Amino acid sequence: MKIKRSGRLVDMSYYLMQHPHELVPLTYFSERYQSAKSSISEDLGIIKHTFEESGIGTLQTVAGAAGGVRYIPMVSKEEATKFITELCELFAKPERLLPGGYLYLTDILGNPRIVKQIGLLFASMFAKRKIDVVMTVATKGIPLAYAVAEYLQVPVVIVRRDSKVTEGSTVSINYVSGSSKRIQTMLLARRSLEVGSNVLIIDDFMKAGGTINGMISLLEEFDAKVAGIGVLVESEDIEERLVDEYYSLLQLSDVNIKDKAINVVEGNFIVQYNPIID
Amino acid sequence: MKIKRSGRLVDMSYYLMQHPHELVPLTYFSERYQSAKSSISEDLGIIKHTFEESGIGTLQTVAGAAGGVRYIPMVSKEEATKFITELCELFAKPERLLPGGYLYLTDILGNPRIVKQIGLLFASMFAKRKIDVVMTVATKGIPLAYAVAEYLQVPVVIVRRDSKVTEGSTVSINYVSGSSKRIQTMLLARRSLEVGSNVLIIDDFMKAGGTINGMISLLEEFDAKVAGIGVLVESEDIEERLVDEYYSLLQLSDVNIKDKAINVVEGNFIVQYNPIID
Repeated sequence: MKIKRSGRLVDMSYYLMQHPHELVPLTYFSERYQSAKSSISEDLGIIKHTFEESGIGTLQTVAGAAGGVRYIPMVSKEEATKFITELCELFAKPERLLPGGYLYLTDILGNPRIVKQIGLLFASMFAKRKIDVVMTVATKGIPLAYAVAEYLQVPVVIVRRDSKVTEGSTVSINYVSGSSKRIQTMLLARRSLEVGSNVLIIDDFMKAGGTINGMISLLEEFDAKVAGIGVLVESEDIEERLVDEYYSLLQLSDVNIKDKAINVVEGNFIVQYNPIID
Repeated sequence: MKIKRSGRLVDMSYYLMQHPHELVPLTYFSERYQSAKSSISEDLGIIKHTFEESGIGTLQTVAGAAGGVRYIPMVSKEEATKFITELCELFAKPERLLPGGYLYLTDILGNPRIVKQIGLLFASMFAKRKIDVVMTVATKGIPLAYAVAEYLQVPVVIVRRDSKVTEGSTVSINYVSGSSKRIQTMLLARRSLEVGSNVLIIDDFMKAGGTINGMISLLEEFDAKVAGIGVLVESEDIEERLVDEYYSLLQLSDVNIKDKAINVVEGNFIVQYNPIID
């Protein structure tokens, strides 16, 4: 199709948003719009400028014959801080308190817009690392893992606690839950992860870190590497954390059942987040 | 920010894509860009034209004081057909065959781009129905449900087969699995669904329809209504289907373990899909 700059800008923006972290050759666009590469370059300049101004992310240009342009979704520090502050308020509502001090979070994790934004934050944090796959454990972490994976354009693998006939042969490990000290099992389909993969672990909740530690042990069975760890909420007052380097959006510091008070503060994500638009 | 048309087109496209099915007042854009409403209207005309030309969807304009513009994601029939044909080929690979005639689909359901496109197809099919929430059953249907819900901008609720302390009180029902005739249980957190909700049911696989029928029974407990049913794959040679109106992208018509042959054809979706860009 031969279209004008205005139409190209709309169509290119859509295309780039649908293909984050993918190197798109300039010839793809010049053929798609039957336009000169110089016009395409100008268009990309406008898009890059607007993306950066609006805090949507940036475009990376790779020069040379094998070059092209790559859209890196990247939230600004200001936007990330604002979102985390809003999440804190959302979490701290007293009506979330369930018997036993658990929190009802189904509405938050069931909201696609919130889930997507959480995905964007982690995808921004880990944008510069080499990541081949996002891993989580069923069930609550699943939507978060997909949201991150969509922005990074990598597949998701899901660790389960029970075996399913529809997954073929599996690799299983036993691990000790950090808080209850009970022995548990988790497993992963053998086919689902390639040897040597760089794996980003995403989960909704981390207490002592036993589950995440279990996932790390499972990765060793696949000769895979941990490329990063991101959790939505971590709980405070843990004597000994089993996991070293991780990023948490929120920290649950105090749940007082008697007074129906929940104290949620920002996790370690925001202080360590330095988005660099280059 | 005061920006030129070219920048506005990029930023507006992004904003609309992030807010599908949401009525955005023209004043939102005219204030955001400090531009006259007449300019914004022209911009929207360009975006609408490009979206429709590119098969991205359409913009609906609502006139009047409470009016505005709404982005309706909508895949063209041509694109939908192409995608379903590709899915058929992907499903029919002999190496997917597992003992017992099951199919290994973890790689397909773990690919965020495929999952997103499946979501777009169902969101397009059900774009004109009143839908308040998307429902699925753990675990395989979860990413599909989120993909649909993201395009429709509604929440997701997840039916489980086991109770979790972190969901508060639940409503459970017993149902008879259509193929194995066994009695099973499914449950849903009481808080997760409002009375009278219009619910779109999404699942990955339908045999006789027992699970989906169970979800329908569960909806009755909440005085909620079925707004539609979409499944990725249905199996053929079912004597008696328990569910009437549903849309399937694919139909698994023959799995021959001995010859390692899988026959996958298009489901009933495509013949009934008539996207209307208005």
